Amino acid sequence: MSSKYAGGPTETERCIESLLAVFQRYAGRDGNACSLSKREFVTFMDTELASFTKNQKDPAIVDRMMKKLDMNNDGSLDFGEFLNLIGGLAQACHAQVMASPTSGGPKRP
Amino acid sequence: MSSKYAGGPTETERCIESLLAVFQRYAGRDGNACSLSKREFVTFMDTELASFTKNQKDPAIVDRMMKKLDMNNDGSLDFGEFLNLIGGLAQACHAQVMASPTSGGPKRP
Repeated sequence: MSSKYAGGPTETERCIESLLAVFQRYAGRDGNACSLSKREFVTFMDTELASFTKNQKDPAIVDRMMKKLDMNNDGSLDFGEFLNLIGGLAQACHAQVMASPTSGGPKRP
Repeated sequence: MSSKYAGGPTETERCIESLLAVFQRYAGRDGNACSLSKREFVTFMDTELASFTKNQKDPAIVDRMMKKLDMNNDGSLDFGEFLNLIGGLAQACHAQVMASPTSGGPKRP
């Protein structure tokens, strides 16, 4: 995305490139390189989002997330389904920041 | 997200942090710090995604994108609407990579 332009990629461009790179890295481990199998998704979660999974009380959280994200029930996650996970996590973090009394977000009454 | 864990953030964690930071940086420029006004959105597009807007033939592309992204028609973009933009751009890049004959994606017949 950025190679055509001088000055290097912007933070947003780097972020989009990372989303593609991370998905391709894990989706390319076995079988179909266009989707994350259950096994690839577990590896992704254990490697990239271990800080999130470690905090969950439910030991079946990764199973349940896979089922929830797999909108078309084909047993794997395509890039759009993967983006829904990232978007959901980002929104949860954003909501937490906005609710913080020290943030610029809405104040509690 | 990562400060609690040794070894620094993963690429996915850094990406989520960037999404929050970029949104807050532009949304915080004037008025409501929880949403991007039209003016803030134009600044964001001109600064962060200039490589995209420069390639568009339609001079009103940023106007049209704002209207399309503003799902609740309140004249500004909240974080969820902003994420839809990032997701849409990432999916367009991913589709391009998958269609490339040198990618690991589906081959043309």
